[in-house]
Amino acid sequence: MSAGRLIGVGVGPGDPELLTLKAIRVLGEADVVAHFAKAGNASHSRAIAAQHLRSGVIELPLLYPVTTELPSCSAAYRDAITDFYDGAAAKIAAHLEAGCVVAVIAEGDPLFYGSYMHLHTRLAPRFPAEIVAGVTGMSGCWSAAGTPIAQGNDVFTVLPATLPEAELERRLAEADAAVVMKVGRHLPKLRRALERSGRLARAIYVERGTMAGAKMIPLAAKPDDEAPYFAVVLVPGWEERP
Amino acid sequence: MSAGRLIGVGVGPGDPELLTLKAIRVLGEADVVAHFAKAGNASHSRAIAAQHLRSGVIELPLLYPVTTELPSCSAAYRDAITDFYDGAAAKIAAHLEAGCVVAVIAEGDPLFYGSYMHLHTRLAPRFPAEIVAGVTGMSGCWSAAGTPIAQGNDVFTVLPATLPEAELERRLAEADAAVVMKVGRHLPKLRRALERSGRLARAIYVERGTMAGAKMIPLAAKPDDEAPYFAVVLVPGWEERP
Repeated sequence: MSAGRLIGVGVGPGDPELLTLKAIRVLGEADVVAHFAKAGNASHSRAIAAQHLRSGVIELPLLYPVTTELPSCSAAYRDAITDFYDGAAAKIAAHLEAGCVVAVIAEGDPLFYGSYMHLHTRLAPRFPAEIVAGVTGMSGCWSAAGTPIAQGNDVFTVLPATLPEAELERRLAEADAAVVMKVGRHLPKLRRALERSGRLARAIYVERGTMAGAKMIPLAAKPDDEAPYFAVVLVPGWEERP
Repeated sequence: MSAGRLIGVGVGPGDPELLTLKAIRVLGEADVVAHFAKAGNASHSRAIAAQHLRSGVIELPLLYPVTTELPSCSAAYRDAITDFYDGAAAKIAAHLEAGCVVAVIAEGDPLFYGSYMHLHTRLAPRFPAEIVAGVTGMSGCWSAAGTPIAQGNDVFTVLPATLPEAELERRLAEADAAVVMKVGRHLPKLRRALERSGRLARAIYVERGTMAGAKMIPLAAKPDDEAPYFAVVLVPGWEERP
């Protein structure tokens, strides 16, 4: 019996038309399709790829025991999430040992801020593994907003809004272009950091990037009332353009 | 007569299977397909998308007058390239004014370090314009290398190897994860900056990412002999993984 094969499949930022031909082929060939979701919720990544799953394919939902209920720096969070990835890898390993091709669907790009990588590091040393690159969530956002983000010799930085205010300010001031992720309740702090780094005027607030009901407005016009965890702020670079 | 429509179409990093369904649909609907190339060379982006061009579609090659012959900071370079983008935008505007749908093919993602954005900024204020996001070249590289690049609260940075050595070193030391572009003749300088920032051991050298003859090796094992302009170095982040 031949060994199975693990494939991390990026399905892009949300619009099902942003799937690649390669992702569609791989989903059609897989024996098992695994997807992440929060327990009790439907899987976003599965919804994006739904129409390309073979009828009768074995589906393996991987349900996060916690997401934002616990601080990600807490020992309780780390223990729960480590157990979860260990268990998910064991379930997939059983299918790989049985000779199956297992595709793990990932929103965006599998190796860029995605959960798939935690399975990859556990399984790729033991089984053949490959990656199907995908369109990232942030590409989806700046494309939907029609905002050129970086060019030429720009330094481009991705920052989590969870950073301390002074560090956000310093890093924003040092980057030509930036994307700030995980905005949520950090919006007021982020706004202050953008203002003091001189970047507020060109910052763009994006909610639900390439999904229905997308919202894209200058951050200066967005009140600090509320922002979802997955909202992002784009800070376009390239001030000296030809 | 209705106004035309401009579409910037990302075709991904090189593998024709990494085109999206949306890119293929748009290429099939376009009246005119424009693509960039160095004068005298075939267009890489056109080659990636070739099998999806309609027979009889009007093709509009946009030929760079200069690429790396002149320093990009020189007045001569800036004048030549500004004239080139102005002229290219004027040619496309003529088709848009005639009511045509014009697709401009872009390697990777159109608004991330691509030439398309110089047409977008000139034309989007005057004509309806949309973007089809694409898989970036760097996603293609870390996917081909099977290297998880960033996770969780990592700060991720894209740096041009053209930066001065001390600045490269400082920025590498401050980022959790990084991609260094335009390596070429800057390889020895970049290696020193990686070594002094403590990042050399995990740096991966990638040449021709998702193309035939791709080369991916630890940078420590790659001599300083020669590197193409488009080679990249990946510095994976996430040292504290669950």
